[in-house]
Amino acid sequence: MFSSPLDPAARHPKVLAFDIFGTVVDWHGSIVRELGGLYPQLDGDAFVTAWRAGYQPAMRRVMSGELGWTLIDDLHRMILDELLPRFGLAHLTEVQRRHLNQVWHRLDAWPDSVAGLTRLKRSFTICTLSNGNLGLLTNMAKRAGLPWDCILSAEVFRAYKPDPATYLGVAKVFDLDPNQVMLVAAHHDDLAGARACGLRTAYIERPLEFGAAHIKDVSPRLENDWHARSIEHLAELLGA
Amino acid sequence: MFSSPLDPAARHPKVLAFDIFGTVVDWHGSIVRELGGLYPQLDGDAFVTAWRAGYQPAMRRVMSGELGWTLIDDLHRMILDELLPRFGLAHLTEVQRRHLNQVWHRLDAWPDSVAGLTRLKRSFTICTLSNGNLGLLTNMAKRAGLPWDCILSAEVFRAYKPDPATYLGVAKVFDLDPNQVMLVAAHHDDLAGARACGLRTAYIERPLEFGAAHIKDVSPRLENDWHARSIEHLAELLGA
Repeated sequence: MFSSPLDPAARHPKVLAFDIFGTVVDWHGSIVRELGGLYPQLDGDAFVTAWRAGYQPAMRRVMSGELGWTLIDDLHRMILDELLPRFGLAHLTEVQRRHLNQVWHRLDAWPDSVAGLTRLKRSFTICTLSNGNLGLLTNMAKRAGLPWDCILSAEVFRAYKPDPATYLGVAKVFDLDPNQVMLVAAHHDDLAGARACGLRTAYIERPLEFGAAHIKDVSPRLENDWHARSIEHLAELLGA
Repeated sequence: MFSSPLDPAARHPKVLAFDIFGTVVDWHGSIVRELGGLYPQLDGDAFVTAWRAGYQPAMRRVMSGELGWTLIDDLHRMILDELLPRFGLAHLTEVQRRHLNQVWHRLDAWPDSVAGLTRLKRSFTICTLSNGNLGLLTNMAKRAGLPWDCILSAEVFRAYKPDPATYLGVAKVFDLDPNQVMLVAAHHDDLAGARACGLRTAYIERPLEFGAAHIKDVSPRLENDWHARSIEHLAELLGA
């Protein structure tokens, strides 16, 4: 049964590294809620979907060398500045744009995240492994009460996931073999990148990641070591 | 009165960055205690004093380029391997050496550190700024209960304090002006490095840093913004 391996060693990675956007925090819902308060006339769902959709191409421009090393805060801002005129918000001032861009620092955790992480922290070292920058991840953790032992980011490794430097970087930071580290994520491509580097993997179901209007397929895939309905469920599966 | 500036803005940096060895944790006492249990015949005070004394020259070899980028764990180990024969411990096995070297991950906090940091965390973002590597600082924090919002290290900036890249790096991570960051340390040279970069500074008295046999002069110096007897006292001074 792939959600509870019989080999006891397989139960015990030392470090759990968490993807953040979508896995630990609800970026879609949080941003739609904030936009609803600030700009009630805006189609928040379409806006945040477009904002997030700009993120992968922007990172690819960095990783291809077309753009120098750039923090996610700055990529978010570049995409935002392109989007605003398309959504009738070209008039936003610099102060308003800065504030809006920082919404990515103010994302709410999924309801199970804090309780699940708190449980897992008793038995494992828990860290972030996100393409988000260190300042963003720290501000988010402080506001949402995420109890990380350590905040790791693309910014530390100067490479974005799925670059192997990120997954192997976590093992190196803790002086561990890759299979002593497990990536926890709601995205199979991220987990595949980690697995290719020898990390273990745990998938978390987040059917509402893209909002209730765009339910995500969260079917289990056999290649992951664990499949959990939530971070609390993962804690249960790991006996934490 | 330099320990409570009248300008209210001066009271409010956003981020407090803490030096660790000597400032937050008691490296001398912790290592002497552990050595006493492991090797009762050893002069623990002389041993740890020599170990720590090897640290600055080793870092200088890295910063001069003589040695490539090297983590503190590895510098500690190089110094340890040189010291052991001089103290009659040449016979230690690889496993014993590894374990002993990791004592730097197991340092005890000063008695006021956890309570003081917990108070300060309510009003400020608190992070480490240490030459210790990320894994070491994370293991130490987990064991000692140090409630960091974020762990920053020479390893992130690929430069050791007092290189300006470290102090300015903290401001950059949080997208702040240098004077919105305050370095908290028990060492005037570290504080001078931070001040030269525009950071604010707070000195913490740690008269026992080198052990009761080598009491340290902890007289106030006017160039620091704050002077506190402990981290709890700093929390009190900052109204946290």
